[in-house]
Amino acid sequence: MDYIDGGVCAAKGFTASGIHCGIRKNKSKRDLALIYSEKKASAAGIYTLNLVKGAPIEVTKKNISDGTAQAVICNSGNANTCNADGKEVAEKMCVLAGKALNISPSDVIVASTGVIGVPLDISPIENGMSDLAANLGSNNSRDAAEAIMTTDTAVKEFAVSFKLDGKECKIGGIAKGSGMIHPNLATMLVFITTDAAISPDLLHKALYSDAQKSFNMISIDGDTSTNDMVVVLANGMAGNAVIDEENEDFNTFKQALAMVTEKLCRAIAKDGEGATRLLECCVKGGKDWITAKTAAKSVVCSNLVKSMIFGADANCGRILCALGYSGADIKPEKTDVSYESEKGRIDVCKNGIVIPFDEDKAKEILLCDEIKILVDLKDGDECAVARGCDLTYDYVKINGDYRT
Amino acid sequence: MDYIDGGVCAAKGFTASGIHCGIRKNKSKRDLALIYSEKKASAAGIYTLNLVKGAPIEVTKKNISDGTAQAVICNSGNANTCNADGKEVAEKMCVLAGKALNISPSDVIVASTGVIGVPLDISPIENGMSDLAANLGSNNSRDAAEAIMTTDTAVKEFAVSFKLDGKECKIGGIAKGSGMIHPNLATMLVFITTDAAISPDLLHKALYSDAQKSFNMISIDGDTSTNDMVVVLANGMAGNAVIDEENEDFNTFKQALAMVTEKLCRAIAKDGEGATRLLECCVKGGKDWITAKTAAKSVVCSNLVKSMIFGADANCGRILCALGYSGADIKPEKTDVSYESEKGRIDVCKNGIVIPFDEDKAKEILLCDEIKILVDLKDGDECAVARGCDLTYDYVKINGDYRT
Repeated sequence: MDYIDGGVCAAKGFTASGIHCGIRKNKSKRDLALIYSEKKASAAGIYTLNLVKGAPIEVTKKNISDGTAQAVICNSGNANTCNADGKEVAEKMCVLAGKALNISPSDVIVASTGVIGVPLDISPIENGMSDLAANLGSNNSRDAAEAIMTTDTAVKEFAVSFKLDGKECKIGGIAKGSGMIHPNLATMLVFITTDAAISPDLLHKALYSDAQKSFNMISIDGDTSTNDMVVVLANGMAGNAVIDEENEDFNTFKQALAMVTEKLCRAIAKDGEGATRLLECCVKGGKDWITAKTAAKSVVCSNLVKSMIFGADANCGRILCALGYSGADIKPEKTDVSYESEKGRIDVCKNGIVIPFDEDKAKEILLCDEIKILVDLKDGDECAVARGCDLTYDYVKINGDYRT
Repeated sequence: MDYIDGGVCAAKGFTASGIHCGIRKNKSKRDLALIYSEKKASAAGIYTLNLVKGAPIEVTKKNISDGTAQAVICNSGNANTCNADGKEVAEKMCVLAGKALNISPSDVIVASTGVIGVPLDISPIENGMSDLAANLGSNNSRDAAEAIMTTDTAVKEFAVSFKLDGKECKIGGIAKGSGMIHPNLATMLVFITTDAAISPDLLHKALYSDAQKSFNMISIDGDTSTNDMVVVLANGMAGNAVIDEENEDFNTFKQALAMVTEKLCRAIAKDGEGATRLLECCVKGGKDWITAKTAAKSVVCSNLVKSMIFGADANCGRILCALGYSGADIKPEKTDVSYESEKGRIDVCKNGIVIPFDEDKAKEILLCDEIKILVDLKDGDECAVARGCDLTYDYVKINGDYRT
């Protein structure tokens, strides 16, 4: 399996486009994305668990309920959430896309990201639709990736080629991470396309199981958005035998999916609002997966740990503290902690006791762009990795100052 | 019931002192506090639920297990946590205090706050003990309150006078809030004294039930410290009939206790690290207490809400979002949200839909020092109030930059 270029257009039969239609004031910022599959595709999605849900979530869930879809339309600049006419507008977006692509509106996945509680004016989308469809092309994944960005500072697109049943397959995705332009919710949107042939049920199974170790293990600020959505379209154009049971091919597909989602997750975490460093907490020795996962997430979610990583301060008491209050059933008196980055590794805690360590070496390690906090619970064999970022002045600035 | 001066020395028979003994480098900062009761007192404590616990917690729990105590010793500048010799040092502090006061070491409550994982040198405490005891006085509550402060910017002491059984009683407390000087854990320490006569069992019952609505409803940064402790000493010197059942006097005592703890909680929240505003989320209409409490806490814990309060930005989507992911069983389509401060009140969300409102008025309200977010779930009769503060550049600075 190899990483390749092409993002959501890497897989056969997929085209994409991204334009500025006028939802956002800044004309140099694309704000409307379209992804289209030549053939109707198996489709699977996972959504935010927030009880307050964006209107597009509701419409997408309905449209995907038959296990198929053929296009994705997504705007940035407005989340279309907590508005009286939200559902109506989201449905209208599907109708407009369906008309432009000559497909049924019920085969369109719709997503929105941006400010909450401001009605989304459909007219710029209506006016832009023919341009958007006309620009569909197999080299335009990047345009679509740009059009879904809000306060993201980097385009996030990755693709992988792999073999199934002797056939060359591809899978690729784009994502927007935690950020907002008109300040609101940190929304995560991920769109993945593949030409592998796989049934809707197994596609959902693969996505759901992958997300437990990928998207559900990222935290930027602990706030779960109203609009989070990850969808996969699989159009089968690679010509492999359809995966409809949990066989060897299914495992291969899951590996390829994981290669894409891991890259997307690292990119999302590293580009968290205001972030200067990627923080990964790798827990091993958990007595079960829940323990390892809960411990790892607690560390990357702690504001005290995140602030300390910003300051490259090696104070490991905060890590022990976050492990202790995580709710995970850990044994503090067995727990070891180390820091690791490209500059090396240093042990700072053995059996729950802080040990003397070289502060200069620790500082050198923590000043890198990508930091790992290694935790060994020494209480079993389960591992988990959680990803996040540091907490910086800029996080506060982005989220406090916008309308001030 | 009236607020009075005197803090932990307001109640009959209690004296206090606070000195600089040398644990902290800054000689103008007191770092060792003592509270003493002429008579052995009923004692009750509640402690952090963090699995990683400071050594003093363990020793205090043991000393208080018979329901009585006579003194409190507390240092700032070092948490005595995650050290190999932690328990030994905490016990030594009790022995030293016991000797100086001529009481049993097992009647001494011990607490520490400050950096984790650095051994606590007992010698400055040993050398300072005779001074500390010599300075005990009934006007020195403030000295003790200063000596337990870390990054706190304001002394926190309150007292109330009330009547039980025709006798004048007093209850008063001091607290340190969320902050650290050598950057580490946000520890909350609260010491309360009263001359009311109450059995250890009912004292514990009163403290435990009060804490559910007071201390357990504060959040500065979501990090639960390893050293949190709230203890009450009741020496009975007011001469009232001992409260040993849940009678009218017990209710009166609980009211007086609540008057002190509410003030302490507001002071702790308002003085959160880097905070510029006190944030209170008042939820009503919950179908049960858990629902109201969970919803209120989620709002004051949200980094997005906290950042927006710093920026005085009226974006109520973030509040709906925090309610939605709280885990509380709320009905978004029924939920109303308003902002309130001394400048007035403004409604911003009705039945889950953001309504048009006067942005200038909202800004005026949010620029005050004390802000209330009012949430009406319209799904029952239960209320809850959670307290926190805004998230500011200074929070990040205090917690990221210290050793940089």
